[in-house]
Amino acid sequence: MSTVEVKPKKYSYVFSPYLEPEVRVKPGDTVILYTDDAFESRITKKEDLPSKALATAKFLNPQTGPIYIEGAEPGDTLAVKIVSIEPTRDFAVSCFINYFGGLTSTPFTRFLQDPLKEKTWIWMLKDGPDGKYFINDEIRVKVPWEPFVGTCAVAPDLEAISSLSPGPFGGNQDVPDVRPGNTIHLPVFNPGALFYTGDCHGHQGQGEVCGVALEITAKVTLVFNVIKKKSIAWPRILAPNKIMTIGSARPMEDAARIANVELCLWMEEEFGFTRWEAYELLTQVGGMYVGNMVDTTFSLVASIEKKYLTRS
Amino acid sequence: MSTVEVKPKKYSYVFSPYLEPEVRVKPGDTVILYTDDAFESRITKKEDLPSKALATAKFLNPQTGPIYIEGAEPGDTLAVKIVSIEPTRDFAVSCFINYFGGLTSTPFTRFLQDPLKEKTWIWMLKDGPDGKYFINDEIRVKVPWEPFVGTCAVAPDLEAISSLSPGPFGGNQDVPDVRPGNTIHLPVFNPGALFYTGDCHGHQGQGEVCGVALEITAKVTLVFNVIKKKSIAWPRILAPNKIMTIGSARPMEDAARIANVELCLWMEEEFGFTRWEAYELLTQVGGMYVGNMVDTTFSLVASIEKKYLTRS
Amino acid sequence: MSTVEVKPKKYSYVFSPYLEPEVRVKPGDTVILYTDDAFESRITKKEDLPSKALATAKFLNPQTGPIYIEGAEPGDTLAVKIVSIEPTRDFAVSCFINYFGGLTSTPFTRFLQDPLKEKTWIWMLKDGPDGKYFINDEIRVKVPWEPFVGTCAVAPDLEAISSLSPGPFGGNQDVPDVRPGNTIHLPVFNPGALFYTGDCHGHQGQGEVCGVALEITAKVTLVFNVIKKKSIAWPRILAPNKIMTIGSARPMEDAARIANVELCLWMEEEFGFTRWEAYELLTQVGGMYVGNMVDTTFSLVASIEKKYLTRS
Amino acid sequence: MSTVEVKPKKYSYVFSPYLEPEVRVKPGDTVILYTDDAFESRITKKEDLPSKALATAKFLNPQTGPIYIEGAEPGDTLAVKIVSIEPTRDFAVSCFINYFGGLTSTPFTRFLQDPLKEKTWIWMLKDGPDGKYFINDEIRVKVPWEPFVGTCAVAPDLEAISSLSPGPFGGNQDVPDVRPGNTIHLPVFNPGALFYTGDCHGHQGQGEVCGVALEITAKVTLVFNVIKKKSIAWPRILAPNKIMTIGSARPMEDAARIANVELCLWMEEEFGFTRWEAYELLTQVGGMYVGNMVDTTFSLVASIEKKYLTRS
Repeated sequence: MSTVEVKPKKYSYVFSPYLEPEVRVKPGDTVILYTDDAFESRITKKEDLPSKALATAKFLNPQTGPIYIEGAEPGDTLAVKIVSIEPTRDFAVSCFINYFGGLTSTPFTRFLQDPLKEKTWIWMLKDGPDGKYFINDEIRVKVPWEPFVGTCAVAPDLEAISSLSPGPFGGNQDVPDVRPGNTIHLPVFNPGALFYTGDCHGHQGQGEVCGVALEITAKVTLVFNVIKKKSIAWPRILAPNKIMTIGSARPMEDAARIANVELCLWMEEEFGFTRWEAYELLTQVGGMYVGNMVDTTFSLVASIEKKYLTRS
Repeated sequence: MSTVEVKPKKYSYVFSPYLEPEVRVKPGDTVILYTDDAFESRITKKEDLPSKALATAKFLNPQTGPIYIEGAEPGDTLAVKIVSIEPTRDFAVSCFINYFGGLTSTPFTRFLQDPLKEKTWIWMLKDGPDGKYFINDEIRVKVPWEPFVGTCAVAPDLEAISSLSPGPFGGNQDVPDVRPGNTIHLPVFNPGALFYTGDCHGHQGQGEVCGVALEITAKVTLVFNVIKKKSIAWPRILAPNKIMTIGSARPMEDAARIANVELCLWMEEEFGFTRWEAYELLTQVGGMYVGNMVDTTFSLVASIEKKYLTRS
Repeated sequence: MSTVEVKPKKYSYVFSPYLEPEVRVKPGDTVILYTDDAFESRITKKEDLPSKALATAKFLNPQTGPIYIEGAEPGDTLAVKIVSIEPTRDFAVSCFINYFGGLTSTPFTRFLQDPLKEKTWIWMLKDGPDGKYFINDEIRVKVPWEPFVGTCAVAPDLEAISSLSPGPFGGNQDVPDVRPGNTIHLPVFNPGALFYTGDCHGHQGQGEVCGVALEITAKVTLVFNVIKKKSIAWPRILAPNKIMTIGSARPMEDAARIANVELCLWMEEEFGFTRWEAYELLTQVGGMYVGNMVDTTFSLVASIEKKYLTRS
Repeated sequence: MSTVEVKPKKYSYVFSPYLEPEVRVKPGDTVILYTDDAFESRITKKEDLPSKALATAKFLNPQTGPIYIEGAEPGDTLAVKIVSIEPTRDFAVSCFINYFGGLTSTPFTRFLQDPLKEKTWIWMLKDGPDGKYFINDEIRVKVPWEPFVGTCAVAPDLEAISSLSPGPFGGNQDVPDVRPGNTIHLPVFNPGALFYTGDCHGHQGQGEVCGVALEITAKVTLVFNVIKKKSIAWPRILAPNKIMTIGSARPMEDAARIANVELCLWMEEEFGFTRWEAYELLTQVGGMYVGNMVDTTFSLVASIEKKYLTRS
């Protein structure tokens, strides 16, 4: 296995099957990627209000990729192990953007009201006795460095989808469990899978309520593997102590339904439960949290701890 | 302070301002309540299928109450400390009910499909070296005894609402954090608050996916307090390490929005943040999980850990 | 048959089974009711802004009733023929109310934005060569007098529901086809049915977009009939040339689903189609419009013209 | 002006900016297009059940296009006048497809229930004294020939979107008012606009409830015009007697909100009303119906009759 470093020549703003791969890698290779933040580093200080700083940005959320993974074919599953995420600057950016976020009307949930007042928050990344943390000079609360990948995707089948969107292909899910130590499974629709990633967050609450987490530039280390002839419908996460499924849809209950059905089916396929035992067991011990309530569709995460997957 | 025991003479199937109180208690009294399960104990073995066992039940989810709390007036807040929940039988009931649950069409999300096959699951409550646990003879996975109150409510203002419904008055929220050690705040709409409770669960996953948790009969010990002249819009939970708000609505995103707005406002009122600092901080560190995705409205829980409520 | 006139002694703000009937009538009686407007006539000129004029109103949408219809028993259907609606003043009121309406955030779809600017619109009712019409001095567009009943309901089963809510019991549906010449069918849950009505509108678009139609006080003439042993789940409308069903729910698609399922079942029960023929035929020729997109639940109307109900 | 005939060499299953134009036309040209049905003519008799007949179809809803309209540039509006739709075969197809439709669970609203029983309906197109009509041998109800274009779109900006989806670019809206005599306005995102069309329906009810209308192959005659420097956000329809806007979103209320906001803004821009007068006037006289309740997003149509657009 070799180590491959990807410094993107240009970014993509769609998860697209129509782009030439940035690089080709083999399963098992250590792949080091550099990602820009969701604003392509246009906002760096609190005076940079989004309406001005982003005025020249036709598209947001730049993606590094596509990466062609040798041997991946439609009908396979791509396993993406997230080895590490390292910061490449000493601050994170968050902001309130006009008509974007969870507690404001948006182009999707559209009203005639004025927007909230925009504002940019700079969070400095510092070292402390308990590890790295973020702090903002107004809020003055320490937020630990717990980075994850906001956006990771394969190219869809025939479609090219905005990098602002989550979906069956993964995408802009903003799910904090897509983090170092965990492995993400994505369905493969195209030869080589055509993987994209970006939008790393230094920390994020469930829901990403204002729509903009602690946005960072990052160096991400991944290892890909291909599970041949295994077809999945929606992204899955394998953590050391639990398994998770992600559903992305509107309204939010549709996302919750997708995630739970997928988890029932997974428990049936691989863990020796009937579908109905899975439905019953999830009722009693399943987890379900909101990943994002702000993107083009909402992402919900259903989970079960591994300790409940073994019968006595 | 005295201890008051409430063995209900009859149950209520609505949260109603039109019923005579079962009992009058004083703030600070230790109140011991007995609650039946959601099926009024009509299902006790796995042969008891809901379509037959519940055929004679015009209403479900019997409530103990109302309890009149001396001194509570409209515009106050009722604080309900949950001291303990003890089982009063050695098993819990769960079941699949026709056209009820999170992964089936229902009278609300109504389709022309046949129902799922109904089934009753009996979970025995046993003692183990690590404490009490439930086990079902088919699923054979140990589920720890972690009881909570599925339904607690005050009487609404002028309305009488089905005990199957959650709302601003509390009600059938099915939120696992309504549990011993925590305190629930409810708005008071009527003199005496008129508190109802029932529907205890021995354990439940987030979402209560099939719609029926580990339903138990229970002895519940509560202490009420009245916070005078404090008006809240939706239920709140105070835990030792975090504060939580509950929003109940359809679609689910509306519940998420309510819970988050309420938490922002709470942080503004009591914890020294501006509304906008709260919005920003919740984005980075807030929690949000699904309490129920099966009731007449869905209940979502927004939270923030207390460690994030103190500025450095 | 006799004629009964109902001048309400006091109004109800809930559809409730707990109130004494205003009057008892027989099927076939001509019943003349007087209804106030949704604001109980607190707004009468454009200077009356809602935030002030309604400040003293604890509840809105006053209902005339309940009316006890002799012979109506639970499990029957109440047929309400709307004979006529006559204006009892020479103007209608509409207004923009803070955080109420279809194009603003609300307590249900709750955001942190400021409200739209409130405003009151007075529409004068005038006689013209083509009949009565409304006109507002700013908008200056003639709107024809086409009155209907915004709110008509029976008392629910055990519940008392706010007069602002639509539901299976009818209620605040704001459906323009509840108008003179048509007959409304409502399920009966209580002895005597306990009918309520109010909230007449001089005209209204589909959706009632700002939430406040041309609100009028009115004299409403109705004739009740009881269809014995016929049980329906949701309100139905019989017009000379079509039949309609109303579903009220959130999200709006749930209302659309309910209305369409109910119409399929109606076509199966009474018009000689199989359920699947009805599903197919509605796909090709059914109507579906939005009654209200502003109330506690949204009301959608599914319909089919009678000419399509006869096979060749 | 010349006449251009387009017999597609191959179909597209995405609205894509990445395809070479089938043909280039000038504004004002008469463009005659041939369209296949949504199933690419794989279903032609009632024995052709979708699960078999469509088993080989990786993609559905074939589109004719893209058509490059000379002079259209990003920021312009494309006006598509629908001159006529003529049938090119003597029958239409409808069917019940597993997990597709308005009264069944789907991959979006996903439950564990079995699908409805699939079925294919053939509707013969016949001539009668009152014009062409469809009739099915089981249902035996005459449905008049009132054809429209189910799908018409421009290529989106950077994205390639499935031909099963509606959106700001138009697409699979299934709105019956996209019919001969009316003109559709679409925003232009790419040079030449890159227009696609297909999925003609011989008749359809509002909502397209089972998901499959009277699907026909057709010869469609269009005339394009380009409105320079006019930017619109969502599709608009101009009919002889009314103007309409289409919003497509989930949940359905978001589609209703979009359509109404767009109509308010249109009335403000072009008809001399303030935004608030428009909001008020639409409340009293606007129309709002459901175009589709079955596609990837739901399409709702807001409208106002032209007679209400002139002040007295």
